[in-house]
Amino acid sequence: TKIIIWNENIHERENEEIKKIYPNGIHNCIKDFLSNDSNLQIETATLDQDQNGLTTESLKSCSVLIWWGHKAHGKVSDSTVDIVQRRVLEGMGLIVLHSGHHSKIFKRLMGTNCNLTWREYGEKERLWICNPAHPICEDLDPYFELEMEEMYGEPFQVPSPDETLFTSWFEGGETFRSGLLYKRGNGQIFYFRPGHEAYPTYHNKNIQKVIK
Amino acid sequence: TKIIIWNENIHERENEEIKKIYPNGIHNCIKDFLSNDSNLQIETATLDQDQNGLTTESLKSCSVLIWWGHKAHGKVSDSTVDIVQRRVLEGMGLIVLHSGHHSKIFKRLMGTNCNLTWREYGEKERLWICNPAHPICEDLDPYFELEMEEMYGEPFQVPSPDETLFTSWFEGGETFRSGLLYKRGNGQIFYFRPGHEAYPTYHNKNIQKVIK
Amino acid sequence: TKIIIWNENIHERENEEIKKIYPNGIHNCIKDFLSNDSNLQIETATLDQDQNGLTTESLKSCSVLIWWGHKAHGKVSDSTVDIVQRRVLEGMGLIVLHSGHHSKIFKRLMGTNCNLTWREYGEKERLWICNPAHPICEDLDPYFELEMEEMYGEPFQVPSPDETLFTSWFEGGETFRSGLLYKRGNGQIFYFRPGHEAYPTYHNKNIQKVIK
Amino acid sequence: TKIIIWNENIHERENEEIKKIYPNGIHNCIKDFLSNDSNLQIETATLDQDQNGLTTESLKSCSVLIWWGHKAHGKVSDSTVDIVQRRVLEGMGLIVLHSGHHSKIFKRLMGTNCNLTWREYGEKERLWICNPAHPICEDLDPYFELEMEEMYGEPFQVPSPDETLFTSWFEGGETFRSGLLYKRGNGQIFYFRPGHEAYPTYHNKNIQKVIK
Repeated sequence: TKIIIWNENIHERENEEIKKIYPNGIHNCIKDFLSNDSNLQIETATLDQDQNGLTTESLKSCSVLIWWGHKAHGKVSDSTVDIVQRRVLEGMGLIVLHSGHHSKIFKRLMGTNCNLTWREYGEKERLWICNPAHPICEDLDPYFELEMEEMYGEPFQVPSPDETLFTSWFEGGETFRSGLLYKRGNGQIFYFRPGHEAYPTYHNKNIQKVIK
Repeated sequence: TKIIIWNENIHERENEEIKKIYPNGIHNCIKDFLSNDSNLQIETATLDQDQNGLTTESLKSCSVLIWWGHKAHGKVSDSTVDIVQRRVLEGMGLIVLHSGHHSKIFKRLMGTNCNLTWREYGEKERLWICNPAHPICEDLDPYFELEMEEMYGEPFQVPSPDETLFTSWFEGGETFRSGLLYKRGNGQIFYFRPGHEAYPTYHNKNIQKVIK
Repeated sequence: TKIIIWNENIHERENEEIKKIYPNGIHNCIKDFLSNDSNLQIETATLDQDQNGLTTESLKSCSVLIWWGHKAHGKVSDSTVDIVQRRVLEGMGLIVLHSGHHSKIFKRLMGTNCNLTWREYGEKERLWICNPAHPICEDLDPYFELEMEEMYGEPFQVPSPDETLFTSWFEGGETFRSGLLYKRGNGQIFYFRPGHEAYPTYHNKNIQKVIK
Repeated sequence: TKIIIWNENIHERENEEIKKIYPNGIHNCIKDFLSNDSNLQIETATLDQDQNGLTTESLKSCSVLIWWGHKAHGKVSDSTVDIVQRRVLEGMGLIVLHSGHHSKIFKRLMGTNCNLTWREYGEKERLWICNPAHPICEDLDPYFELEMEEMYGEPFQVPSPDETLFTSWFEGGETFRSGLLYKRGNGQIFYFRPGHEAYPTYHNKNIQKVIK
């Protein structure tokens, strides 16, 4: 199974703090973690590469694309969005992490503005499992916690999902639908809220579940 | 517009504490509140009445049925469930409050066990509006709070709703999908979590929105 | 209730045959029909007008936008699509007729390519009502027929609709999901397959149902 | 993978014509066909067996249950429906064939009356594939035909499905949504319209796709 981890890779180069956490970029951090699964053939791609690192050819054999973007959604070319959308419709899985809710590709596939409310404070987030028997939630406890998180809150302006897998409780008093499944064409899309800075073990475990 | 408020009316007669809060039963409390709307013709029905107070005839002209039950779901006769289901499929609205998640009629319409997790402690609940522009949420602030609540938590084992209108944050650390819309046949079903004991103003305001 | 009928208005000017059928454009034909409803304030807009005839201001007070396009989807400006999408998310209804399945605004809201199979032969189409009690289907017989139609067939590559209201049977052996409802944000979207050339009474009756 | 084929097994014993076609019952006919797949461990169960042939124990290890019933839906015991529903919610797949639309278990899971229109004449049915890339539709041509079929027509009174995989065209002028997917709890439910009398190859091929 071939997967591609896409990262805009800007924070990690421009911000000294973040560079320390992800010296090789968050894409390589995710790649390292997933590498313990020998069934996966893992590639990475970044914004600054030719054609944003993604071609019809490379996507053709890709089973799951993981998308991380935050600061530069507008710099992804429309033709890249076109070829990713086409592959999702054909059946490629797409995992959109965290601030990817505002990426061109996620908004393209959702048809809405995908806005949400937001606060950066560094508070505890508790993610509850809405469907313990779903493969993505396999082996997880009823909830797991992330200690220092940005807050994402409702209203999250997306179409009604096929299934809500996670809802978040934030220390500051908010809730959020944190894990949402959609089918578009034959592709499964999984939006997953967490993902900032220090990458939690839980997070990667879940990604692995999605891919398998 | 004719509506019927159905109540099993057991707590209010058997428990002295609750009798003080709802001397005429919770159905009459809801009726009193809704009576300020002169467009509504409001009737009530209770479990102990003949045919559980509901007949094909009385339901025929009913636009919205509000359902409150807690202790005696099993005592509602199957033929009552049959005629209510038929009317929902024909287009009658159904508002299921709080512990009605385990009522025969709600489980009949959902096709699942409708289980959830639960704790009685008396803690603050904050309900977030997921779609501020929905008629049911009209004029509500981004959230509203209920001070002394039972907790209902995920996983809530219902089919994926057509729309999630409210999510709850509980002081004790849980979340819950508290306002869910379903269409079955031509009837709109609204499950709304709050409803215990001291009936909140917010709650009734919402019911009125659903009915209109 | 203000509605706007949008038409690319190209066929009617370039093709002599079609000009005879719709001397004032199909938008005015639809307008004439709907004008028997005095509750409607009906405006029209066409592609060749400034800003494609649609502004933030004119859409602000518009309850339902009817969209007709066939030959020149690509000529609708992206900023027009932006403001229409925003208004749909805010709650404006959108009726997309026939070949509008490939319009920029429909594809934007669906997130898929919206492809279908197609044949122009002039055959009988029979539209079956899947939900006779839905307001859009009110007073319709179990089916209605259109004598000389283009065929649209499956697979129709759209997301699963909230509800399928019509399915078509074609004389040549095809089927098609011809009336599909979607909610995006707070806007209701109704895709309706028929609409070519000689405008059927049934069609307009249905549009009127959608608007009310 | 263990599957169980359930059959009420009444037609085959009471009707001489049908007995000739299915001397060992339709369940064994389906079993024979599926037996070419050595990965499947196939069991059968019938109405007249103790507990309708289905126990908590036998269902526990069952991955997919295939349901065939026509004349005796009411004779299936409610406790059998209870244990099948529980297993579907836990994740067992359920394939409901043809007249099983009126089975207790299907109606239980759908929450609606599951009515449809019907004619027995023996006419051609053409099934169109709505999603050629879905595993259930793998390797099928754009459509396949069954020569002598009962007609099932709209309105089919079920909840909106997660996905419509097949739509039928009937010689006599009707359409029907013939292949519908639902998720309830963690179980996938597939309703598939064909299945009467002479069992088509296409049909069994599809069942095999569902199971894998």
